[in-house]
Amino acid sequence: MSTTETYTHETAPTQYIPVNGVQFAYRTFGKADGLPLIFLQHFTGTMDNWDPLVTNGLAETHRIVLFDNVGVGNTSGETPTTVAQMTRDAYDFIQALGFERVDVLGFSLGNFIAQQLILDHPTLVRRVILAGGAPVGQGADEFKFVTSNLGGKSPKDILLYLFFAATPSSQQQGEAFIQRLQSRVVDHDIPSTVQVFQAQYRAIVDWCNIPDPEFTRLAQITQPALVVQGSNDTMFPTSQSVLLFQHLPNAQLSLYPDSSHGSLFQHARLFAEQVRYFLQAED
Amino acid sequence: MSTTETYTHETAPTQYIPVNGVQFAYRTFGKADGLPLIFLQHFTGTMDNWDPLVTNGLAETHRIVLFDNVGVGNTSGETPTTVAQMTRDAYDFIQALGFERVDVLGFSLGNFIAQQLILDHPTLVRRVILAGGAPVGQGADEFKFVTSNLGGKSPKDILLYLFFAATPSSQQQGEAFIQRLQSRVVDHDIPSTVQVFQAQYRAIVDWCNIPDPEFTRLAQITQPALVVQGSNDTMFPTSQSVLLFQHLPNAQLSLYPDSSHGSLFQHARLFAEQVRYFLQAED
Repeated sequence: MSTTETYTHETAPTQYIPVNGVQFAYRTFGKADGLPLIFLQHFTGTMDNWDPLVTNGLAETHRIVLFDNVGVGNTSGETPTTVAQMTRDAYDFIQALGFERVDVLGFSLGNFIAQQLILDHPTLVRRVILAGGAPVGQGADEFKFVTSNLGGKSPKDILLYLFFAATPSSQQQGEAFIQRLQSRVVDHDIPSTVQVFQAQYRAIVDWCNIPDPEFTRLAQITQPALVVQGSNDTMFPTSQSVLLFQHLPNAQLSLYPDSSHGSLFQHARLFAEQVRYFLQAED
Repeated sequence: MSTTETYTHETAPTQYIPVNGVQFAYRTFGKADGLPLIFLQHFTGTMDNWDPLVTNGLAETHRIVLFDNVGVGNTSGETPTTVAQMTRDAYDFIQALGFERVDVLGFSLGNFIAQQLILDHPTLVRRVILAGGAPVGQGADEFKFVTSNLGGKSPKDILLYLFFAATPSSQQQGEAFIQRLQSRVVDHDIPSTVQVFQAQYRAIVDWCNIPDPEFTRLAQITQPALVVQGSNDTMFPTSQSVLLFQHLPNAQLSLYPDSSHGSLFQHARLFAEQVRYFLQAED
């Protein structure tokens, strides 16, 4: 496995592993020893949508595992319509790679999958980073509203609109982020299809509609959790990360300035540094 | 000034400098170059009340300046009864040391003084850490309530009660903090007198009663700010740091788990690491 150290976000080859009749596409790079850090991706995102500043930054100290879940990017199959099934698929993929214990970084839809993964397999996950997300039972209206305004926008404009705040400084950082996404010039993922959009949309809205007014699910997530969000997230309101922080038994919260849903990319160096510190803390 | 590098929290001698007829007591240690980091202390605290894990941790990368404000600890004079006057005194002390530009770390009452210092002298402060505080116009009732329960408690029990959460794990961290405060065995400060308690009490309550419902003061603090608080601060409720974060133009927020007013000491290593990263960011 030490060959992971010779690769970066830009050079790690896309590998494939069969799981339950599906060919899972994944890339792994970074430090060979220690627990792997599994990245769980956002709505319609593929491996190519992770910020190299984040992945390469964390690869200095951790083994990074990016993958496309079922039906997304270069992974075969049809994208399921529930977070529960996406979580089962992610679990089976992690098991197929032979990992018995992992750290997990989930962003947006990936944040939800990370929560579900811990609930379903409490001993698998050591520490979790929950970026740009919400507890169940929150935010369906906001998600439906922001995603109702995507028609006619280019992929680039969608990223700027959904991930960055409506300020000149944030939009400028958005342009820089989009530039960084071009740093990998070979072996790209297939962009998400309409089927992915529709299935993940339904999964997210259904997640947001699961009632849990007492936050009983969060009480069961006893792992150390780092909750991260922008100062003004228009997709999953910032107040929902405050709820995550308040109801998770062992969480710390970081809210970043001048930022929206993509705050972890806008403040990529800070985010990578905080994640590194969080993961290296003693248990 | 390079001799500061030979000293630590434990060994830095208490020095004195005359300012406006007052002998200011201060200690300085840590890295010689770069902007000094001025520490502004909490209600009734002296230089001896800073956590060596924080001060020594930050001394690796910054020049640390601890001091007793007028009438506190080993500084002569009578403690004033307003944050405004405490701020003037702190400014005069900083000027007397010859610093034209500084970073500031304010905790609790020191948080208020840090805010006022930036309002009064906007070009003096480069970056500010605002721990365990609140905007003006908030929290007088909570402060009066928690401080009404101090009678009959030992100094140690007061620290455990005010600074740490009512959980076994937080109280255990409180004991460790109190142990760390003993690491400096020479040249102690004189503990605060009743006059300090009463004057600072009045200053805090009056600060909490200054009306500013539109948070116009915070809008003027454009410096990068790191806002830090515990998950359940009983002295200045955690929601007040969320208000600081929301209304400061350029703030990031870190809320720490399982902690109360002294979260920066309970999570001293994390806090020092976050402050170091925050101060080293590019401007």
